[in-house]
Amino acid sequence: MIKRVHHIGIAVNSLKESIPVFEKILGVKAHIQVAPDKTVKEASFRIGDGVEIGLLEPAVAGSAVAKFLEKHGEGLHHIALETDNINAELKAMGKKGFQLIDKEGREGVAGKIGFIHPKSANGVLMELIQPGEKE
Amino acid sequence: MIKRVHHIGIAVNSLKESIPVFEKILGVKAHIQVAPDKTVKEASFRIGDGVEIGLLEPAVAGSAVAKFLEKHGEGLHHIALETDNINAELKAMGKKGFQLIDKEGREGVAGKIGFIHPKSANGVLMELIQPGEKE
Repeated sequence: MIKRVHHIGIAVNSLKESIPVFEKILGVKAHIQVAPDKTVKEASFRIGDGVEIGLLEPAVAGSAVAKFLEKHGEGLHHIALETDNINAELKAMGKKGFQLIDKEGREGVAGKIGFIHPKSANGVLMELIQPGEKE
Repeated sequence: MIKRVHHIGIAVNSLKESIPVFEKILGVKAHIQVAPDKTVKEASFRIGDGVEIGLLEPAVAGSAVAKFLEKHGEGLHHIALETDNINAELKAMGKKGFQLIDKEGREGVAGKIGFIHPKSANGVLMELIQPGEKE
């Protein structure tokens, strides 16, 4: 079951340049993290008790975010939906006919994550996330 | 002051085709509305007490969403940030150097709205919204 929108991911060329922009828009300070697989650096903004906004800078060439930037330039990258059980939810999405990028959850910045291909969801890259205990 | 993320807008070619897809992903039913200026039809999904996801189908040729679809195809279109005072917030964003599409709030589907140009915000079209009393 999908509980809520967990965060919105935005692909950027440079955290250094984009963090001040989003701090000015959102009025809150960024919290910086590196993905466990070290492919991406992320700056998260939490406004009120709501959804987070995450800026994603590729940390290595050839990563998914690096390829996105080459093709599309900076901009909205994905929506992440929160679930209690990432593996059960991915399996259920597969059975419903959605094309999965990840068949099982893997470790992400803020919990276990898996992606549904944008071809299945009107061009939107959808992440499922089972938040870690730190949250 | 920005209070929270209010909704995420997704541009689609056809509500008829995309509503069943998002109902399957999100597990909730869509609520359909037409913008006061009649340029867009919107299907909104509310998950939990969180941010809404809105599918946007152009209702007239040449509208902003129609142009987006021609250029980019279907996909993530904008993020909307909630404020108590749309005109004061737009003015403040202008003073901070952001390029405004709307200098004053205008009537949208769910309240008074105004847009910041994506050129100012790392390729992200940002909407500000002061929700109407119905919400």
